[in-house]
Amino acid sequence: MSFKVLSSTVAAAVDKELMSTVGFSIDQLMELAGLSVAQAVYKTYPPSTHNKVLVICGPGNNGGDGLVASRHLKLFGYTPTVYYPKHKSSNVLFNNLLTQLKTFKIDVLQNELSNSELKSLINENDQIIDAIFGFSFHPPLRSPFDTIIEHLKQVETSKPITCVDCPTGWDVDKGPNIADLVDAKYILNPSSLVSLTAPKPGSKFFKGNYHYLGGRFISKEMAQKWDIDIPNYPGVDQVVRLNI
Amino acid sequence: MSFKVLSSTVAAAVDKELMSTVGFSIDQLMELAGLSVAQAVYKTYPPSTHNKVLVICGPGNNGGDGLVASRHLKLFGYTPTVYYPKHKSSNVLFNNLLTQLKTFKIDVLQNELSNSELKSLINENDQIIDAIFGFSFHPPLRSPFDTIIEHLKQVETSKPITCVDCPTGWDVDKGPNIADLVDAKYILNPSSLVSLTAPKPGSKFFKGNYHYLGGRFISKEMAQKWDIDIPNYPGVDQVVRLNI
Repeated sequence: MSFKVLSSTVAAAVDKELMSTVGFSIDQLMELAGLSVAQAVYKTYPPSTHNKVLVICGPGNNGGDGLVASRHLKLFGYTPTVYYPKHKSSNVLFNNLLTQLKTFKIDVLQNELSNSELKSLINENDQIIDAIFGFSFHPPLRSPFDTIIEHLKQVETSKPITCVDCPTGWDVDKGPNIADLVDAKYILNPSSLVSLTAPKPGSKFFKGNYHYLGGRFISKEMAQKWDIDIPNYPGVDQVVRLNI
Repeated sequence: MSFKVLSSTVAAAVDKELMSTVGFSIDQLMELAGLSVAQAVYKTYPPSTHNKVLVICGPGNNGGDGLVASRHLKLFGYTPTVYYPKHKSSNVLFNNLLTQLKTFKIDVLQNELSNSELKSLINENDQIIDAIFGFSFHPPLRSPFDTIIEHLKQVETSKPITCVDCPTGWDVDKGPNIADLVDAKYILNPSSLVSLTAPKPGSKFFKGNYHYLGGRFISKEMAQKWDIDIPNYPGVDQVVRLNI
């Protein structure tokens, strides 16, 4: 299916407009974005077959989406474990999202893991969510996320991996263009991708089976203004599959 | 179906805990509550048959849930009109929710309507949402909401009415106990009710066809602590029907 894309620069401008003239708070947008990630995961890898889910969260808003998704996944019947090695403790929203996870008795690992610990953690989960970096990421990957992606690459053909907005390590606009990057070992090929608001240019290179759009909070008028395609979401769903 | 209820006093304590030790912001809770109301309406009176929906919003959090629901209803394909005669302009969140509705090109009527204007407004819509007062309401009803309920009563057998958390005018704990109230003309009998977090005692007297529970944000541990029944929500739904 062909679809219009939103470059990282335009995506940043849309985000800014949503949180200024449109009047959304980041709490609202992150709640809806995280919920859409959890719904996409449920549709693709349900708790009956993929109960144990490892959610790897980065330090910014992509990680925040992952924290929200983890709470909804728990409510949907999953057993999530969150790995969150670079928590910004000065951010009130992220602190609150963490408090919520603790109340929901979700395991959150905040200390950096050794290679063997990381390997075990990945192996003992049925599926993985990459909520490390989103549309504001620029290569190269830095520690500890480079090592995390290296480990995920080793299981990418055997274990479902869902990436939030953009596979971590890819250039948001150019995709998995390794000429610009350090090494092919950081180029993840996930089985599922949840684009938020609109697909980013890099997602044209996505070869996995499941490509969803989430973040159902754009008005028709705003979509026209920014030249965003909004496909028909089914019913009350917060995600719509793009590649069927 | 029998279900445990939450008195207005306990509901207030649960709300307080959600927004303190559990770490939720009111933006998050209202977003999820409003989304659950919109989902319940979609399941009961879909846009294909009941497209024009009048959402009557009170000055407090119940009204805020209605404002959020209106935005989601628009995204679900409805044509909502909001009647919001007592807006607290000092409240940043409510101001932002209103800004969102304007961006979504949703008509918001903020001036008090005359009786004939109100009658016309009700008549030209296919269904109505009562988001006037919730669990912190105590009778009697004051202007202009007394007149609004009088008008809604006149169409209650001919037009679908969905009440948020508690039918406005009912005593939250005693229900439609008219001995405590001014007049039976303020006792609405809606066709649908969306209880939030847990049903309130008054909802035992609800005789309509559709009783939903929404507000899917309570952990198992918190439910145990407060003796709240959490039925099995189907899949990723934000509402579950109680009276089937």
